[in-house]
Amino acid sequence: MSETVRIVLVGLGNVNLGLIKILIDKKKAIAEQYNTRFNIVGVVDSSGMAVSEKGFAYEDLVNLKYNKGKVNEMTGFLPKAPELIADCITADLLIDASPVNLTPGNPGLQLIKRAIEKGWHVVFANKAPLVLAFDQLMALAQQHKTSIRYSATVCGGLPVVNVLKRDLKLASLSSLHGVFNATSNFVLQELEKGVAVEEAIKEAQKIGAAETDPTLDISGQDTANKLYLIMKSFSDFDGSIKDIEVEGIEKITAEQVSKAAKVNTQIKLVASAYKKENQWKLEVKPTTVAADSFIGSCKGWEMGIEIKSDLYESISFKNYEADPRGTSAAVLRDMIDIQHQQVTLRMKNTNKGK
Amino acid sequence: MSETVRIVLVGLGNVNLGLIKILIDKKKAIAEQYNTRFNIVGVVDSSGMAVSEKGFAYEDLVNLKYNKGKVNEMTGFLPKAPELIADCITADLLIDASPVNLTPGNPGLQLIKRAIEKGWHVVFANKAPLVLAFDQLMALAQQHKTSIRYSATVCGGLPVVNVLKRDLKLASLSSLHGVFNATSNFVLQELEKGVAVEEAIKEAQKIGAAETDPTLDISGQDTANKLYLIMKSFSDFDGSIKDIEVEGIEKITAEQVSKAAKVNTQIKLVASAYKKENQWKLEVKPTTVAADSFIGSCKGWEMGIEIKSDLYESISFKNYEADPRGTSAAVLRDMIDIQHQQVTLRMKNTNKGK
Repeated sequence: MSETVRIVLVGLGNVNLGLIKILIDKKKAIAEQYNTRFNIVGVVDSSGMAVSEKGFAYEDLVNLKYNKGKVNEMTGFLPKAPELIADCITADLLIDASPVNLTPGNPGLQLIKRAIEKGWHVVFANKAPLVLAFDQLMALAQQHKTSIRYSATVCGGLPVVNVLKRDLKLASLSSLHGVFNATSNFVLQELEKGVAVEEAIKEAQKIGAAETDPTLDISGQDTANKLYLIMKSFSDFDGSIKDIEVEGIEKITAEQVSKAAKVNTQIKLVASAYKKENQWKLEVKPTTVAADSFIGSCKGWEMGIEIKSDLYESISFKNYEADPRGTSAAVLRDMIDIQHQQVTLRMKNTNKGK
Repeated sequence: MSETVRIVLVGLGNVNLGLIKILIDKKKAIAEQYNTRFNIVGVVDSSGMAVSEKGFAYEDLVNLKYNKGKVNEMTGFLPKAPELIADCITADLLIDASPVNLTPGNPGLQLIKRAIEKGWHVVFANKAPLVLAFDQLMALAQQHKTSIRYSATVCGGLPVVNVLKRDLKLASLSSLHGVFNATSNFVLQELEKGVAVEEAIKEAQKIGAAETDPTLDISGQDTANKLYLIMKSFSDFDGSIKDIEVEGIEKITAEQVSKAAKVNTQIKLVASAYKKENQWKLEVKPTTVAADSFIGSCKGWEMGIEIKSDLYESISFKNYEADPRGTSAAVLRDMIDIQHQQVTLRMKNTNKGK
């Protein structure tokens, strides 16, 4: 029989809706390959929280979203502040895919902290809590022996954080460059075609790839958030998000983009990290690159990163992800990783006892 | 105090020499970050085996290689067949970086099997044992509760196998395309410049990136071996290496390469996997691709792969690796992964007992 993992979803937007759909599509594979069943026992959105001891049917949640419903219309709705969810239901794992809110002291961060204190593992698609309190959350998780995963926070399904942390271990970062925001990359490409910025943003939002507030995309702040999480995960950078120099694409004109294209270059919103006088220098800014460079090759909905290190010379990777499904899949891989780790530990303990 | 892992090196070529150098360079980081010390207690090459209960000094092994010495000149040399190494010393982990030998029943495979039977974990840089006996080795390892890692066997330091197995979990592969052999890719590029094939191969061997026998590179067999390992690791492909149609670059002329370049295309030795009538079709052959496609962008010493799947749309990654150091680093990441897993399990067991 499959082992049941009790999960709580924070946010019912594109990412968690996509997650539920994948849980439906891959239910059999999850049971067969990982002997696991994810039972959604709590849901939180801006309207409040709903809990169910025996769990919500995946299909009911999909239907709720299709009917543009909110959590306060669900059976199991509790008239309590969302940040109290960890006190209202027993669970193993929290998935935070709520909209990015960078206001310090926002209730989302309180919700996460309380969940960790209750011993819940956390998977993030939402960058905000990590940007606001990376070290604090990691320390809290260590204290309470829970796991935090966040591979979905950087470049959707592209396993940037995982590759850096797990595959490039022991390597010392020399520099990195990347295109981390597909919406702004798409907008720059549309500019070249003569489409107005506002139109391009609307198109991006229709597809569901743009952040709820496109200002974060266009201003470079979303890119900076990702750069910060990458550097906190992989390097000895110990500064804050405010140490990143950020310039957005607001002032880039169609004329500039066309002019660049004529001489085989491209204007990209590039995130960079490199050492200057032995200090990390982190920047996000519109940059002209050769069209046939790796960064230049990241077109439209693509995001990519080029990493130079002492052990691995140069490694580059990119994805094409017009649909947020890849981000949802990244959340699921983190969920499975945590569960697999827990099960392995328990199995070994049991064997030891025999 | 650091935990000591007793390791045995099979092969003392570029990869294991590179590994020893990294073990020297990163000794402090390995101790601090992973609380581990790797002690080389056995070495095997074509001249025989040498063992040391207290371990060989890293520097002595590097000096031996610099002086073009062989294992039979070492203190600790035993006049025994190399495949008996697992019966001659106690160890935890075997690293097979010996030259690729695809002869069925070759002693290298016997050596590996005996090591697994003794409970040793195995890290492969050498593809041959896995190509000859993938299923058999995995079953044997499972039976003896040991781990097998082989991220260094495919595209050097590029974490192809790891990303597929760990990050794209639950995704169903639609198709993949890749350039997996840097030597043949480099040779094709040199052809365009007017350099003769033989000269280009010599240059590749000088750098140390070519296989000992360049026939494997040029004939497409090395590419096919890598494609096979990828498909065995990630897909439901259950055929044998012989099911891959292989055509090398022997017959490609400088004229063909130049002609292709003139119309913005490139001739690449491309590995492909795709479904045809619900069956996997695996091929390695010279293919003309657009210069600005991802495969076309893999230049000279670069290797790359483009993966299409149901959950992640398209993910592509490539590396630039003129030096085999990246492959050595990949061996080390596998060693650390295995050790980290073992330590975690033991720590949890100890805590449980309290």
